[in-house]
Order: sequence, then C-alpha cells, then structure tokens
Amino acid sequence: MIEVARARAFILESVRDVESGKWKVESGKSGMASPTVVLKDELDIVIPTIRNLDFLEKWRPFFEAYHLIIVQDGDPSKTIKVPEGFDYELYNRNDINRILGPKASCISFKDSACRCFGYMVSKKKYIYTIDDDCFVATDPSGLKINALNQHIQNLLSPSTPFFFNTLYDPFREGADFVRGYPFSLREGVPTAVSHGLWLNIPDYDAPTQLVKPLERNTRYVDAVLTIPNGTLFPMCGMNLAFDRHLIGPAMYFGLMGDGQPIGRYDDMWAGWCCKVICDHLGLGIKTGLPYIYHSKASNPFVNLRKEYKGIFWQEDIIPFFQNVVLPKEATTVQKCYIELAKQVKEKLTKVDPYFDKLAEAMVTWIEAWDELNPAETSLANGKA
Amino acid sequence: MIEVARARAFILESVRDVESGKWKVESGKSGMASPTVVLKDELDIVIPTIRNLDFLEKWRPFFEAYHLIIVQDGDPSKTIKVPEGFDYELYNRNDINRILGPKASCISFKDSACRCFGYMVSKKKYIYTIDDDCFVATDPSGLKINALNQHIQNLLSPSTPFFFNTLYDPFREGADFVRGYPFSLREGVPTAVSHGLWLNIPDYDAPTQLVKPLERNTRYVDAVLTIPNGTLFPMCGMNLAFDRHLIGPAMYFGLMGDGQPIGRYDDMWAGWCCKVICDHLGLGIKTGLPYIYHSKASNPFVNLRKEYKGIFWQEDIIPFFQNVVLPKEATTVQKCYIELAKQVKEKLTKVDPYFDKLAEAMVTWIEAWDELNPAETSLANGKA
Repeated sequence: MIEVARARAFILESVRDVESGKWKVESGKSGMASPTVVLKDELDIVIPTIRNLDFLEKWRPFFEAYHLIIVQDGDPSKTIKVPEGFDYELYNRNDINRILGPKASCISFKDSACRCFGYMVSKKKYIYTIDDDCFVATDPSGLKINALNQHIQNLLSPSTPFFFNTLYDPFREGADFVRGYPFSLREGVPTAVSHGLWLNIPDYDAPTQLVKPLERNTRYVDAVLTIPNGTLFPMCGMNLAFDRHLIGPAMYFGLMGDGQPIGRYDDMWAGWCCKVICDHLGLGIKTGLPYIYHSKASNPFVNLRKEYKGIFWQEDIIPFFQNVVLPKEATTVQKCYIELAKQVKEKLTKVDPYFDKLAEAMVTWIEAWDELNPAETSLANGKA
Repeated sequence: MIEVARARAFILESVRDVESGKWKVESGKSGMASPTVVLKDELDIVIPTIRNLDFLEKWRPFFEAYHLIIVQDGDPSKTIKVPEGFDYELYNRNDINRILGPKASCISFKDSACRCFGYMVSKKKYIYTIDDDCFVATDPSGLKINALNQHIQNLLSPSTPFFFNTLYDPFREGADFVRGYPFSLREGVPTAVSHGLWLNIPDYDAPTQLVKPLERNTRYVDAVLTIPNGTLFPMCGMNLAFDRHLIGPAMYFGLMGDGQPIGRYDDMWAGWCCKVICDHLGLGIKTGLPYIYHSKASNPFVNLRKEYKGIFWQEDIIPFFQNVVLPKEATTVQKCYIELAKQVKEKLTKVDPYFDKLAEAMVTWIEAWDELNPAETSLANGKA
C-alpha cells in the first residue's frame, strides 16, 4: 500500500499545480513540456516493434522518465534504432529463446503478440503497452493528452463492477456516485486493467475496415468507466495499462502469427481471459480515457486473412467465456489461468485443434512466468 | 414497423439537413428555432407538477409539436397554468380517483411518483418524462440540446446488452462495432428505455448532497451506451424516455410520498424492475445523452428524511434484484411484473412490511394498466 499512497501524493501534488498552471492532472492532460512524473520507478513501458522507434520522439515529454522494454519482432539481426535519451532494454527472438529455453514456444513470432514477453521480464508493478503507430492525441481544447498519466489515475482509483454509475467513474474529479447507488458498494474494488481508446483510425476488424475505409474516430468521449461484472469486452492492446501484480499472469497474448492459423486476436484473447479472472477475483477493468492518436490503418486484406478463422471461432469462444465458472479454490491469477487452460482444452478443442495447442501454451506461459517471477508467485499464493 | 420506418425517414431527412445548415440530428442538437419534428403522433410528454409550468417556455421549440400529459400532484383545487400554444391534457387527484376508482390506491400522492399515471393513460407508443425544474442544456459548442430528439434516436436504434462495445453506441454516426465484437450479436435488440443525464445539479442522494453542496456536473460526456445484461443501474426519472409498448407496464413508480415510509426511490424502483424484465425479455436500456440542465438542488434535509429508510433497504433490494430469476413462461411484461410482485412479497416483506403493500400495489397497477389498455394487452400476449 505504500507505493499507492506515494502515487496518490504525486497526483495530489499535480492537482495542486492545476491552480497555478496549465496542468490538469484530473483529466490527464498537459500543456507543458515537463509533466509531473508519476510512478516513475514502478512502471515499465512495453513496446513491440519491427522498425525504428522514431515515434518515441513525439512521446518524449511523457515517456522519457520511464524505463522501456522493447520486444523486437521478426528478424533478430535487424537493428532497432531507439531515439537518444530513453532508458530501455531490448529483447529480440534470440534473447527470448535464450531466456525461456523450450518454454519460448509460448511466445508468438512475427506478431505483435510477442509483446507479452515484456510483461514477463518486467520487474515493476505496472505496465503500459503501446503500438509504435500510436501518437500523442489532443483533447477538444487542443491540449496534448498525457495518456500514461490518465492510465495511472485509472489504475490507482478503484473500479465499480457490481453496479453501474450513470455519471461514469465516480472517482473522477467533479463526479460521484449518484442517487440509488448502494452505499455498501462505494468502496469499489482494486483496478487491474485500464483500457484506453484511439482517435483517428478506430480499431475495426477487417470486414468493417473494408466496408468503411474512410471512417475515422473523431468523437472525444470524456469518460472512464468500469466494465460491469459478468460483461465481456473487446480489449485492444494498442493503448493498454495494467497492474502486473494483480493480473499480470493472465495477460498472455496467445499463439499468433508465424506458424499459427490466426492473428489479430492476441489482445482479444488476453482480454477475455483477464475479464473472467478479474470477475472471479473481484478486480476491476476500466475503459475510456485516455485517447492516443492511431495514425495508420493496417491493410484490411492482410487483416482479413489473419482474422478469417477468428470470425468463426469467436462465435464459440464468446459463449465459452460467458459461461466459464472458476472454482473457489482458484484464489490466485495463476491458479485461475491454469484452470482456464484446462477448460479451453476441454471445451474449445472441438472447435479447432488449435485450441489444444493454445491451452498447452497457456500452461507453458504460467510456468515461464513463475520461473521469471518467483517472488511474486509466492506473494500471490501467500496473499490468497 | 411502419412507424419506425417513418421515424427513420424523418431522421435521415434531418441528417441531410446537417450538410446544409446548423442542424446536427446525429447528436440531437439544434441551433435553430424550429427543429425537425420526429414521432409527433407517437410520443407523449409526461410532466408531474405542483406549480405553474413556466419552464415549458424554454422548451417551446422542442416540445410544442407534441402532446403533453400533465399529472398534477397535491391539492387538486389549485390551478396549474400551462403556457399558451401547448396541446395538453391535465389530470389531478380527483381525475385519478375517478378514472381508476379503488385502483387509484396504487398511484402515489404528494410525490412525483404520480407521474406514472400519465404513462397509463397515454395512447402513444413512446413516452418522454421530464421534471419541471429541468431546462434546455447546451453542448460544449454552445448549441441548445434537443433532448427529445436524442431520446428518439436512442429508442429507434438497437441496444447491445450482451457484449460491451468500447466505442460506445455502435449505431451512432461515426461509430461502429470494434474488432473482436462477435458478428452474431451485431443486430442488437430493441431498445425499451433511454435514460438521459443532467448538467449542473447532479442527481445525488441526500448524504452526498450534504457532503458536497457545491458540486456541479460540468462534464459533457458525448456518449450513449447500453447498460449490459445482468447489470443494474440507478434510473433517474428526471429525463427519461421509453417505449410504452415494449416496457410500459413495468414503468410503475411505486408507493411514495403521502402515507408511505419512503420517497425518492420511485424511479429507482421502476429502473430495477425494468432492468430485470428487459434482461429477461431481451430488450435494451441505453444511458448517456441527452443532457438537460437541472436547475435547482432539492433540500438535502428533506431528502434525507425521505430517503432514510431506502438507504438501509437498498442493501437488501439490490441483491434481491441481482438474483431475481423470472420463469420462462413469463413472456410478456405483465406476466414478468406479476411474477416480480410475487417475489417481492416473498423475499422483501421480511425487510419491512412496506414491501407487502408495495407488492400488492404492483398487482393493482397491472390490473389498472390492462383495464385502460385492453388492446395493447392482447397485442402483447398475442406476440409472446
């Protein structure tokens, strides 16, 4: 709890800045070059990439104080250029193979799903992950949005999954629980995941991209809200933050890309797994602010090929997750995840043999996670 | 379906106007004096009041084309003045007693819960109800918000209760279903209720009013969203629209005010009943836009006296509604509501004898509804 208290102190400090300057920490925005840095020593930024990371220049005022974990996808002999002044570690496929040995099979290749390796090697409490075609968005008043700062606020304030608040996140400045909200539920639950959104190119599937090639998201919705208990959502990995200690082992992005029959479902899979586990463990997931500016639509034809099977499988996967029941004994994320892997094997293998392989990779992922994070594992088990 | 098709044509017409003028039907706003009128012959505006309806002057450009049903609360000998040019019918307590006879006991007295009598005598498909201290709000660009028009758009477009869409209402202009949203769920379900919000004075309970007397809602959240299946919410009656044919008989505002131990839970009760019935029947409830401007905070001390018991009871009422299961045979709203009354009697009477009385009033309400709406009842039963 000490680190949370410290972070709250940071945030309160920033709020005080509002009075005197342009800083508006409440909505996670800054008009200044050097925003207040929050959780500097407790958060890693994970970036999967195949190219030079020039996009970081745009994020310099917001990211420079943080440590980056770069997961290089594809050809490991290629050199990824990182702009000067950033503190980072970089892992390519050779590193992943060396560190995980045979367990490296659970990390996707030639797919941005490889990013979850970064979650595993991080030693911090919080992760922010962002795609390298995502830039700083501006809010309707023209201020640059400090996405990371908003994610941190989302993660440090409780979630309210058991009853819907019509004025959205009751923990935001200027909002509260409305009349009729049960008082016993107002303490909320810890927030495990903060799901941010995208201006400009919306995160559409290939069929929608094909049908609406010109659609751009220009609507800035000034809201953060908890996804209710029992409700699934499509979690996008483009602009996502989470608490590793609370939910990390469930943030597995699956088997995608090279040698796999499917792509572009990595973050969805992680989202569905995380949601049912959060529901089971009484943790919250928030969505809404912050926005990033998503610059480039990926090729819808390529996407269609990657998504093709997913479009069908999804019709079985969703009812599966809607009906998952985790046993009472599953009191840690790891135990929940292993149980989920078992149920995936039992119930989804009939959809396609791919799910048998995926279920095994899920188990391998947990073994690898525990190997790299022995202290956390014992903490999680001890706490439960 | 003809009327829906006609309304859609109206809306499309209005959308075309956008290109040329200031009209933005998509977000339910107008900068002009004479907005396009939608569903004029299919919607009644229900207003409960104890005073002169001068507030209607502010709504004239938006309401004048519609028929008003005014339910006069309190002393029936008092004359309610309605601004000229409005087409209305007015019912006072004497009228209610005359029309319903002994069944009038189910209609609250000295409480705005009496408004539900207006829902019962209406012969239209849609109802919009608004409090007489609610005025026209403006959006961030300074345009006056045509609240009614936005409600109609909400009601005429489907809801998506079975899976959360992170870009909010996928049926709004410029939005769609995001990647990972199952295609089989994209048709959505009919929308039964549209719950609008309030700028300025938020709808807080007495304790929150007492603690935060100066809090004002200034955040305009440009979103409409479906409350997910299985999730309860606090429905406020200040700015509310619904489809009478789909959900009308469940819109009972309970026993409040004179002679009752509780107040200010009328709309909440209706909301919880409606939500579990909508979930059971596969209907949707949307919340968000439109905003109205709520001008005056009610007295928190008076409110505390009214709410006092509700604050305790709510802690039992919410788990009750969260666990309600309606039988398969309950295929109409009426059947669902009668079943709900039975369960209220069985399970909540132990909380307070009031619930026994309320359960009986719920049955009386349905009898009165069916008496005044014989054609609809047979239609509903015929459809099921």
